[in-house]
Amino acid sequence: MLNEIYEYIEQRRDDYLGWLTEFCKIPSVAAQNRGMKESVQYLGNLFESAFEQSPEVLDTGGYPVVFSHLKGDADTILSFYNHYDVQPEEPIELWKTPPFEPTIVDDKIYARGIADNKGNLIARMAAVHAIKEVAGRLPIDIKFIFEGEEEIGSINLGAFAEKNQGKIQSDGCVWEFGYRDADERLQVSLGVKGMLYVELFTKGAKTDLHSAQASIVESPVWRLVWALNLLKDKNEQVLIPGFYDDIAPLTEEDKQLIQHYRLEEDNLKKHLEIDAFVNGLTGDKLKNKHIFEPTCNICGIHGGYTGEGSKTVLPSEAFAKIDFRLVPGQSPQKILESLRSYLDDNGFDDIGIRVFGKEDAARTHPSEKIVEAAIETIESYTKQKPNTIPNTPGTGPMYELCQKFGIPSVSFGVGHFASYTHAPNENIRVEDFIDGIKMMAALVLKFGEKMQKVKESSHGDGTNE
Amino acid sequence: MLNEIYEYIEQRRDDYLGWLTEFCKIPSVAAQNRGMKESVQYLGNLFESAFEQSPEVLDTGGYPVVFSHLKGDADTILSFYNHYDVQPEEPIELWKTPPFEPTIVDDKIYARGIADNKGNLIARMAAVHAIKEVAGRLPIDIKFIFEGEEEIGSINLGAFAEKNQGKIQSDGCVWEFGYRDADERLQVSLGVKGMLYVELFTKGAKTDLHSAQASIVESPVWRLVWALNLLKDKNEQVLIPGFYDDIAPLTEEDKQLIQHYRLEEDNLKKHLEIDAFVNGLTGDKLKNKHIFEPTCNICGIHGGYTGEGSKTVLPSEAFAKIDFRLVPGQSPQKILESLRSYLDDNGFDDIGIRVFGKEDAARTHPSEKIVEAAIETIESYTKQKPNTIPNTPGTGPMYELCQKFGIPSVSFGVGHFASYTHAPNENIRVEDFIDGIKMMAALVLKFGEKMQKVKESSHGDGTNE
Repeated sequence: MLNEIYEYIEQRRDDYLGWLTEFCKIPSVAAQNRGMKESVQYLGNLFESAFEQSPEVLDTGGYPVVFSHLKGDADTILSFYNHYDVQPEEPIELWKTPPFEPTIVDDKIYARGIADNKGNLIARMAAVHAIKEVAGRLPIDIKFIFEGEEEIGSINLGAFAEKNQGKIQSDGCVWEFGYRDADERLQVSLGVKGMLYVELFTKGAKTDLHSAQASIVESPVWRLVWALNLLKDKNEQVLIPGFYDDIAPLTEEDKQLIQHYRLEEDNLKKHLEIDAFVNGLTGDKLKNKHIFEPTCNICGIHGGYTGEGSKTVLPSEAFAKIDFRLVPGQSPQKILESLRSYLDDNGFDDIGIRVFGKEDAARTHPSEKIVEAAIETIESYTKQKPNTIPNTPGTGPMYELCQKFGIPSVSFGVGHFASYTHAPNENIRVEDFIDGIKMMAALVLKFGEKMQKVKESSHGDGTNE
Repeated sequence: MLNEIYEYIEQRRDDYLGWLTEFCKIPSVAAQNRGMKESVQYLGNLFESAFEQSPEVLDTGGYPVVFSHLKGDADTILSFYNHYDVQPEEPIELWKTPPFEPTIVDDKIYARGIADNKGNLIARMAAVHAIKEVAGRLPIDIKFIFEGEEEIGSINLGAFAEKNQGKIQSDGCVWEFGYRDADERLQVSLGVKGMLYVELFTKGAKTDLHSAQASIVESPVWRLVWALNLLKDKNEQVLIPGFYDDIAPLTEEDKQLIQHYRLEEDNLKKHLEIDAFVNGLTGDKLKNKHIFEPTCNICGIHGGYTGEGSKTVLPSEAFAKIDFRLVPGQSPQKILESLRSYLDDNGFDDIGIRVFGKEDAARTHPSEKIVEAAIETIESYTKQKPNTIPNTPGTGPMYELCQKFGIPSVSFGVGHFASYTHAPNENIRVEDFIDGIKMMAALVLKFGEKMQKVKESSHGDGTNE
């Protein structure tokens, strides 16, 4: 059966590539409210022609979730979480091809959003389509959950999931992203870091002043610098009281997975043009820090005159945007409260805090069937073990959509080491896309089989109904 | 004689206002290279019609100095330092009248550059013109030194002065600016603070990165924050080693002057919309800090994403622009070297320093004849003592142009408390302009008399040749 499906996918490769490139022509930049309705419309048409079934377009308060539940034989449900929104294409002058005119060069397709996340979204629809076309039906239920706000922090997805618990429930979820590492091994992620995103802001006098006034009028920029300095020391230690207290201890499985995780240090240093990693770390310590430790990063800082040359001004306001990447156990809400108290206790009650995002970290246990199915599928298809990590250093709404409701999840996909997500010249390789469709189809079958066995053994009656 | 001159000025008030408003129509923004040649041309024509003598247009390497030496009876020389360039008019949307269409509303004339510095420049030319017209000649030599780069840091004036020592030499200089305080008293300044203007900058990876990388890739923004934090503590104490060491002790005259200096604290707090001054200072401590203490101010800071909402990015670079306002004794060069060593010694040799300006502080002793002449002139004209301060909290090239060559200087002028220099709706009051012309004419006569007495007593022969 699987071989027939693979053959079918090969026959339809141009169609599936067409689904993808048409989709990538729509500039669905959520942050700029471009192409969002067109994307929903496009997906609606695609669902109808692929599955003869219109998706539900579910209100979230923001951009809708495109949702589809396709019935299968067994009462196992596999869900796919993807998103149809993309990052802004700026800085446009660094693109070698127009970002919304998908272009194939040297077997790579270049387009904004093709790696993050349209390539994966289409590969998964194509996989399910191929199974249905070849088998005439689906072995298990499939749910597609496509949101439109991932690139703006999935701001409405938590509330949506709460309200639509029944709809989103599944036995396993394939998360949105995935890449091949520099050594061509597929990366499999079992979780994500959480996040607290805040802006610290300060105000001084009502307007910018001649800087001669700096002798007697307090500077909001200095207030901000001093406040920031309280947050993290030169050794990368976050100084907010209790910040590390609730971090869940690593499990044996976590420690084992990280052992096998390869971080290509020299490649990465060369690629980033840096001499060393933070604190001069290498090897296990570096890997551990990357995967298991939280961060406190300044995404942006601004105050006063930032043009060419000199201007002598005492700025009237300043702000810094900070993202904390959190690990399991850490509560964004608790850290936010601790941050507020800490600033107050140090005399910085004049510093305001705006909250832009709060997400819990999530991790799926490697013994979950969806993880086993993914790893076995990849091993079987690629003839090598995937690079499995307990979580990526990145963030996503996995807790809100899955872990909170007991849904295990796993992430792998069609990107590669140099896919340049969020950057100019975003791309995927054509063959990775086709391979991705095939592996996803294989995963659907494999997961169905595994769940069937689980149910049989728990029913204890051995029937195959 | 003085009364005749005052009457003449009254008769010609519309002409002098015309000189000023025509001049203010030229958008002489040095930073943007607008209207600079037109200004030089305008001044050339004005000199010819007022004094039947073309000024010299002296090369500086940048915008030229317009220089004129008018011969008088006695061998005393009084010089006027002014500038014909103005600040950019941005933000233009906050202007109530077009910045380069001088407009009178409620006896105030609104125009960019009218308070800083065209009102003073024209008032001084008008004063000398009125004396010459009424007396038929000048009692002393007058030199006008009008530069075109004051608003961009007088970057070429120091070298110009070195090269033109003979030309610029005088027995006293009237410095460019001056304002009436909120209590209507004229402010007389005997000096300026110095300045070191630097930009600290840092680089991280070759491009901005997804902030998930912040776990292992060093952040230039954090490096900058930590480095800045080394420079000044929460109590406004500058921490660069030796920063305060060379400050010249205050003289008895300095201490006496500051006693009489009034800082309208409540007015100023209300105007700036602040609750308190730095460190909660009031009274003498506040005045002393404002006038006698150096500053370390962040004019601007930038790194990463500073737009609306959130973006998760690890910035690739960051910078901060810093101006140190210095007091007599402090050497900008020595402080620059100390700053470099201090950063290096604390492990911040990765922080680069760009230098945008170095100016020494300057102060004239209150016993100088030019100061006495100014204070007596103002007392006699306004019937109240001026608010005399040892130096303004601001900066100018007074050291380079005057103190270095032993030329005493004093500053007062036609602005008022709410002249909004460097800001939208810059203005002066019509009557302050007319008063300013009269006082400047009186000063010329008074200074001539005083210098004559000095020369007589030092010659010891009592002749009046």
